[in-house]
Amino acid sequence: MDDYRYLDYSKTVRLCEEVFQKNGYSAEDAAIITDVLLESDLMGIESHGIQRLELYCSGIDMGRIFPVAKPEVVQETPVSAVVDAHESIGHLAGVFSMNLAIKKAKSTGIAVVTVRNSTHYGIAGYYAMMAAKENLLGLSMTNTEALVLPTFGKKAMMGTNPIAVAMPAKPYPFYLDMATSVVPAGKLEIYFKEGKPVPEGYVLDAEGKTTINAGDFINIRKNKTDGGLLPLGGSGKLFGGHKGYGLSLLVELLTGILSGGITSNHVRIKFPAERCCHFFMVVDYGLFGDKEAIESHMSDYMEELRKSAKAYGQKRIYTHGEPGLEKRQSIIERGIAVNKKTYQELCAVCDKFGLDQKEYIKERSQ
Amino acid sequence: MDDYRYLDYSKTVRLCEEVFQKNGYSAEDAAIITDVLLESDLMGIESHGIQRLELYCSGIDMGRIFPVAKPEVVQETPVSAVVDAHESIGHLAGVFSMNLAIKKAKSTGIAVVTVRNSTHYGIAGYYAMMAAKENLLGLSMTNTEALVLPTFGKKAMMGTNPIAVAMPAKPYPFYLDMATSVVPAGKLEIYFKEGKPVPEGYVLDAEGKTTINAGDFINIRKNKTDGGLLPLGGSGKLFGGHKGYGLSLLVELLTGILSGGITSNHVRIKFPAERCCHFFMVVDYGLFGDKEAIESHMSDYMEELRKSAKAYGQKRIYTHGEPGLEKRQSIIERGIAVNKKTYQELCAVCDKFGLDQKEYIKERSQ
Repeated sequence: MDDYRYLDYSKTVRLCEEVFQKNGYSAEDAAIITDVLLESDLMGIESHGIQRLELYCSGIDMGRIFPVAKPEVVQETPVSAVVDAHESIGHLAGVFSMNLAIKKAKSTGIAVVTVRNSTHYGIAGYYAMMAAKENLLGLSMTNTEALVLPTFGKKAMMGTNPIAVAMPAKPYPFYLDMATSVVPAGKLEIYFKEGKPVPEGYVLDAEGKTTINAGDFINIRKNKTDGGLLPLGGSGKLFGGHKGYGLSLLVELLTGILSGGITSNHVRIKFPAERCCHFFMVVDYGLFGDKEAIESHMSDYMEELRKSAKAYGQKRIYTHGEPGLEKRQSIIERGIAVNKKTYQELCAVCDKFGLDQKEYIKERSQ
Repeated sequence: MDDYRYLDYSKTVRLCEEVFQKNGYSAEDAAIITDVLLESDLMGIESHGIQRLELYCSGIDMGRIFPVAKPEVVQETPVSAVVDAHESIGHLAGVFSMNLAIKKAKSTGIAVVTVRNSTHYGIAGYYAMMAAKENLLGLSMTNTEALVLPTFGKKAMMGTNPIAVAMPAKPYPFYLDMATSVVPAGKLEIYFKEGKPVPEGYVLDAEGKTTINAGDFINIRKNKTDGGLLPLGGSGKLFGGHKGYGLSLLVELLTGILSGGITSNHVRIKFPAERCCHFFMVVDYGLFGDKEAIESHMSDYMEELRKSAKAYGQKRIYTHGEPGLEKRQSIIERGIAVNKKTYQELCAVCDKFGLDQKEYIKERSQ
């Protein structure tokens, strides 16, 4: 980790808020976007946090993201809504739509909101956690640009299509946030920035052969050639690659199809629009029994898991969300980790918007 | 396939119906159970079909399944219900509960029904397809006895916990039915019956080491020792084993926890009760737009997938459900494939219930 620098958290919040305001957002909206973005870093998911600030800025520059657009409800029932994001930034469309799903579920018990014509919304888990904080079960999914190969295919036809779920429990909620590809695209961005080789079984190159060069993936993405990420379960069917492929199609169905939007193989195709789609679902588990009893049942089960017999050489079994939430406070204290390349990008962003680096990028001593 | 025999389909239907009636079921209930059971064989899923007839019979003998019990609604809202199956056979509890979810979704748009105190319900996909046949989106999940290891663990704490989804489309629906383990337990039963070695990365033995002996898994299951199946994504986190583990916990949450039932690590523990739990969800996708437009969008996307560029050496890309549904009619014509051991079991079942083998077990010429 020698190549890492650690940035003061509250300064970084101010940096992001300033940058989004310079990009045309109100102070309130800039604060929402910043909260989604930096929550990723606080959970230890470097790939989806501050390292993408520069990407969002360039997305706005290129006209892929429209800062002036506002998400709009275009179809609605007591248990559902379809939102047209009108190419607003995904974080705002996501928070708007999840809040709508929460409001409906509080009244009817279950609600689904689908979103079309949106843009990258950051970590899927943020929205699921919004519901969990209201003592509701939350689900969040999104399609993305096409980066993932169907089983036996060599052309990317699906997105990395994360599935996120959050359910209240003690001491940690059940908080799952997983790309349905073998790894998320952001992980490859990190391998590339760090110049490290990628494990075999993550990426197929343009000829459909396995590669350990993260640069191959970056080029596939940039030039939209054949090749891409393998689905969860890997190549072929022997270890369940067709299952990861199937989960990815489920996400396409719930996001691109059920929103009247587009599937990942059409996202970002007609420049400049991105037009990815999201899915949010909220369930008030009080429909099924006493809420406290249900929460404590989930808490007890996760405790049984953590305490169960460890495999040879292993000291600890984790439940989902535990590692991130456990480290959250210490990351706030330690500062946000950025690698060298991201650090340089942040300095360039400051320069571009006339912000004093010293005021916004303060390193913390380690 | 030399060891296989092919049984006349309509005779096999009659055999199953007779056997379930001999076990105390009405003609109507025996027909429902038989339809679920043999649909698996018709879809080419040998592991969950007629090869398990003997297991269900012995489950009834042992008092694990109560033939006289009837599923009962114990809690209900317009969008939800909790069903207590009272240890009735899972197929009947499943059909009853999915019908209830379909009825509710036709009125409200979305419905969830959870089931507790049930028994093995056959293929999860059968119930999802019940909704798709009514032009609705169907989901079905179940927990099972504990057979699957958490990441870094050596004691099975989750079931194989399948997720099934069915969505109408042409010429084939999207029909996903996948264990969240690397393979379903039934697959190991087949490896064992055929005496074939298991690929490395499916099973860890009682010491937590990888094994290629299907008999190890059969013993782990029988004696409830440490060891078990790996989750989708395999051992550790490198290829996403923690994701398969997370999906499995999601199924435990939606089935065992949200039904007021039990998680897989408690299923089949207190003899004779099994007490596994199910989850059914139905969404009327008309909530989100014109139904025909949504169906044809899904059909078009799946056609794009099937036509997309093939990986080196591959001739065909499948969408989920296509291989099974494509072969369905030919399997009816060809007959149901059973291996030698299953054939012997069926003969023994005939003997036990005083059924004339010649009348019920008719081989078809190949």
